[in-house]
Amino acid sequence: MKYNYLNNLPLEEAKNKYYGHLTAVGFRGKTETAAVTDACGRIIKNAAYAHICSPHYNASAMDGVAVKAEITFTASERTPVTLTPADFTVVDTGDPLPENADAVIMVEDLIESGEGCYKIISSVVPWQNVRQVGEDICMGDMIAPSGTVLTPSLCGALLAGGITEIEVIKNPVAGIIPTGDEIVPPTSEPETGNIIEFNSTVFKGMLGEMSAEAKVYPIIPDKKELIKATVEKALSECDIVLVSAGSSAGRDDYTSEIISELGTVLVHGIAIKPGKPAVLGEAQGKPVIGLPGYPVSAIVIMDEIVREVAAMYYGRARLPRDTVKAVLSKKLVSSLKYSEYVRVSLGRINGRLSASPLARGAGVITSFTKADGVLIIPQNCEGIEAGEEIGVRLNKPLSEIENTLIVTGSHDPLIDEVSDFLAKKGAPFRVCSTHVGSMGAIYAVRDGLAHLGGIHLLDTETGVYNKSYVEKYLPDGKAVTVKGVGRVQGLMVQKGNPLGIREFRDIKNVRYVNRQRGAGTRILCDYLLEKNGLAPQDINGYHNEEFTHTAVAALISAGNADAGLGIYSAAKMYGLDFIPVCNETYEFLVDKNELENPMVRAFLDVLYSEEFKTRLNKMGGYV
Amino acid sequence: MKYNYLNNLPLEEAKNKYYGHLTAVGFRGKTETAAVTDACGRIIKNAAYAHICSPHYNASAMDGVAVKAEITFTASERTPVTLTPADFTVVDTGDPLPENADAVIMVEDLIESGEGCYKIISSVVPWQNVRQVGEDICMGDMIAPSGTVLTPSLCGALLAGGITEIEVIKNPVAGIIPTGDEIVPPTSEPETGNIIEFNSTVFKGMLGEMSAEAKVYPIIPDKKELIKATVEKALSECDIVLVSAGSSAGRDDYTSEIISELGTVLVHGIAIKPGKPAVLGEAQGKPVIGLPGYPVSAIVIMDEIVREVAAMYYGRARLPRDTVKAVLSKKLVSSLKYSEYVRVSLGRINGRLSASPLARGAGVITSFTKADGVLIIPQNCEGIEAGEEIGVRLNKPLSEIENTLIVTGSHDPLIDEVSDFLAKKGAPFRVCSTHVGSMGAIYAVRDGLAHLGGIHLLDTETGVYNKSYVEKYLPDGKAVTVKGVGRVQGLMVQKGNPLGIREFRDIKNVRYVNRQRGAGTRILCDYLLEKNGLAPQDINGYHNEEFTHTAVAALISAGNADAGLGIYSAAKMYGLDFIPVCNETYEFLVDKNELENPMVRAFLDVLYSEEFKTRLNKMGGYV
Repeated sequence: MKYNYLNNLPLEEAKNKYYGHLTAVGFRGKTETAAVTDACGRIIKNAAYAHICSPHYNASAMDGVAVKAEITFTASERTPVTLTPADFTVVDTGDPLPENADAVIMVEDLIESGEGCYKIISSVVPWQNVRQVGEDICMGDMIAPSGTVLTPSLCGALLAGGITEIEVIKNPVAGIIPTGDEIVPPTSEPETGNIIEFNSTVFKGMLGEMSAEAKVYPIIPDKKELIKATVEKALSECDIVLVSAGSSAGRDDYTSEIISELGTVLVHGIAIKPGKPAVLGEAQGKPVIGLPGYPVSAIVIMDEIVREVAAMYYGRARLPRDTVKAVLSKKLVSSLKYSEYVRVSLGRINGRLSASPLARGAGVITSFTKADGVLIIPQNCEGIEAGEEIGVRLNKPLSEIENTLIVTGSHDPLIDEVSDFLAKKGAPFRVCSTHVGSMGAIYAVRDGLAHLGGIHLLDTETGVYNKSYVEKYLPDGKAVTVKGVGRVQGLMVQKGNPLGIREFRDIKNVRYVNRQRGAGTRILCDYLLEKNGLAPQDINGYHNEEFTHTAVAALISAGNADAGLGIYSAAKMYGLDFIPVCNETYEFLVDKNELENPMVRAFLDVLYSEEFKTRLNKMGGYV
Repeated sequence: MKYNYLNNLPLEEAKNKYYGHLTAVGFRGKTETAAVTDACGRIIKNAAYAHICSPHYNASAMDGVAVKAEITFTASERTPVTLTPADFTVVDTGDPLPENADAVIMVEDLIESGEGCYKIISSVVPWQNVRQVGEDICMGDMIAPSGTVLTPSLCGALLAGGITEIEVIKNPVAGIIPTGDEIVPPTSEPETGNIIEFNSTVFKGMLGEMSAEAKVYPIIPDKKELIKATVEKALSECDIVLVSAGSSAGRDDYTSEIISELGTVLVHGIAIKPGKPAVLGEAQGKPVIGLPGYPVSAIVIMDEIVREVAAMYYGRARLPRDTVKAVLSKKLVSSLKYSEYVRVSLGRINGRLSASPLARGAGVITSFTKADGVLIIPQNCEGIEAGEEIGVRLNKPLSEIENTLIVTGSHDPLIDEVSDFLAKKGAPFRVCSTHVGSMGAIYAVRDGLAHLGGIHLLDTETGVYNKSYVEKYLPDGKAVTVKGVGRVQGLMVQKGNPLGIREFRDIKNVRYVNRQRGAGTRILCDYLLEKNGLAPQDINGYHNEEFTHTAVAALISAGNADAGLGIYSAAKMYGLDFIPVCNETYEFLVDKNELENPMVRAFLDVLYSEEFKTRLNKMGGYV
């Protein structure tokens, strides 16, 4: 089996090498003339100077009468001045000042005094209530320097300055070539071994945010000559070429070879994770970039490299991104070999902004959909301790993050349902839910990482849920539990129960799928094992851990396991059989200082509402 | 003359009244089905649940061989295990795991040992290097709640979850009707009394930012029946109707009347400044909004009201905007009658973020083009003291603001030229220049409001520029002056010098235009007056103050004045005659701690470069 190792160039070195080369070969966008009325969002090539002043004549700033100011100088309450029709001209806002007039008296200050005359009791000074020539813009003033993105108000200023057309950089066209034998177009019924091609949609969306147009080519199988021909076609039609997948050094990875044959490979392998197996190349003066097949790796390369290549095209500098300081919620260990990009969710609890790492796998696209920001662990760093203050690069406006209710702990689909219910009602915040198990919820609320923590922790000595755990781990009364739901736990098994599982002890003869340590359902499992005289080593699959009820159901449904503990609604979703084991008390833990937080109140109000009960009944298994 | 006073409803009251009415009449966007591949940026109607798991089969996470994990359990350096071809299947990343295999050994860990066999020296556990079914997304999981904006990664997650089409809210169409007898389409040669219609372009750009499509109608003169017919047409073609200008209560203002006749006026007059004369109405279940004619007023209403109306259409909550804390640079006085929207520029100098108010006039569109944010002075507040910490609503990413060089003080077009030079070179920062005069520069640098301050302050006793002022106002050595340019000051007069002005003392017989107090040119003027035995009251127009050399030139060129002091490049720009008066030393004042700031260095490097001298020579008047 062929295997070529990749380079491991530090990111900044890779960028300097690549951008230096692109500059040397003259990579830069062409320009076109645009009507300023249609140019919002475009980037101007050269500095724009006003052709005319704005206003370009002396204009009345008010509705009223235009006069020569000096005839009003003596006006006062005691010595009113009467203006005869010969003294004034009626003007509306925007009207040009008549010859010889140099001020305007507001209509509100005019007192009708018969025969078309007005009385005034205060004077005006020259140029009062007049917008003199150039008040806003003077002819010759620079309205915007080269390379400016035209905002709506800048377009207005250009038009006010008499500029109707302007030279702008053409939007680049980026060709996206999805490759891979196993890749199929989006479908809701893929066959085994088919991978749904969604990366090009992600890239297209990201390119849109860079003001680039995406041209998505059909999926090309892993045949070198076919891919090469498509890259050549894309080079003739596009300004930037992106080859999706095949960027590594495996037996079916051709991107690097193809770029070498058509032009130059500058970098193959960057010391970042995810994102390592990227190819940075150039052909015909255009960037040709090999993106990794894993979506998260590809997104990191799009964000780090392609975004800056688009900026180069526009002749714009690469500016740093908005970052915030946040406290890291748990220790992160990282390799010295890479700079690592960790997606995090952010939340403000008790006044402090904290960052919780999301799943680190390169294949987990949902780690990006949930990410509020990215924390970059430098290459020469072994990791970051919990509680350290760190910089997080923002993916979202901070105001959105500040208005987020963080719900963590034991998984239950009802949390997402409440969140949807709130969204439908137009609640002015969003809900971010993560699944860290019941013990995770206790630690998160204790450490100020979540507003609400879902828990169902059985005290195996008393049979009472939650109380003793809260007393033990939060002895200072920092948090309280509030009512949640009752729900049915049981064994989920294949449809029709082919192995004839009847009670919990029967799991010793089958392939089990467990929940992670600290999950309430894991504690229940251990309790039931002990009660039935079983030990973990008796259970095939005890160490096969999943984080949610639906993940357990999915593995049973897929045949990876025969049985697992979970809630009824998950079994129902997957059409599995369900053997009830017990009813449990699912509650929410709340930091005492957050009890009056309007987001917390709104969440609980929905949960307790009659309307929401209908939804719970539909899901099933809540008592 | 007809004049109807407006109401003065506080903003929140106006919003509640208006949005309550729109909700009551069922204002809400219709939906359509979109392909997920084209849905980035769209807003989903209902919660999206995964149709399938992702991965939907057990997939190899690596290139390597798939095995039953148990056959590897004894492998170690001392007891290698040999895999014969019957023991494994070669798999690439993404390949489905063969029946009976439950783990993958990476290609890097395989040692070829002849006859198609491999040796391994470490074991794998079940499901190692396998992406099990549902690792990323489980069937039935909620991917996004109702009303979510689809980001690129969310589109990817939807496709991964087997969703190919989705119900999204249709983008609204907003009709813009520009009105006014004096309004003309964009032109570079407007006639006196013509006002260039640029507001609709500003609105169109802002609507684009709200994901709304703009339909701009032709300009309608101030004829009530014509405007009414166009509003009716727009009501039949659009979801939101915006009538530009005519929203006040003057003799040619018809918007309020027309909306009353077609539907309901909820609010006419809001207690905000600028933006007061707005009309909030409804007809046929659609919002019809009368926008003020002044661009700044209209932008405030677009930003405050129309943006939230668009959010209502999409069924989204109105979220607060990103704000930062900054220190106010100068005292602001405001009326108790209004809540006032003050545009500010922001800058970080010496570690502190400070906010400097820009021009407050409703007609000054450039106050928006330069605004980094908006400071809102509440209605019941008389003003804010200099030095107070205040919240500023951001218009730009904070990172852009942090990377801004603030140059203030005496006006000279060369600052904009350096800024453009830097932009062309791709400098990773932008330059923000404001004109507050030389004394303003001294105060700004002293108070930490600017990185660089342009000064030309003549010590009338010694004839030396700048030194004595810096020693007097910055005695602690907080700031130093660095070399700028030498430039020629003189009298600008009408082309051909029709009044025969020959030297400074001749201004006593003509209409003069002066510079503002604190400007270096004003100090020069006062010095020359004294030297010539003249007093301010001898000068017609002494109190007519402008802030820039070009503004003075523009007024002379327009005939508002006959003469004014200024620099040669401004006279040249306007084709005015120029009578040299003196050569002066224009320098930059820099905070000592900012001398090594890379932005300051880059600015000065350009200024001192040979390449830039060519530009200066072209402008003329630099010595």
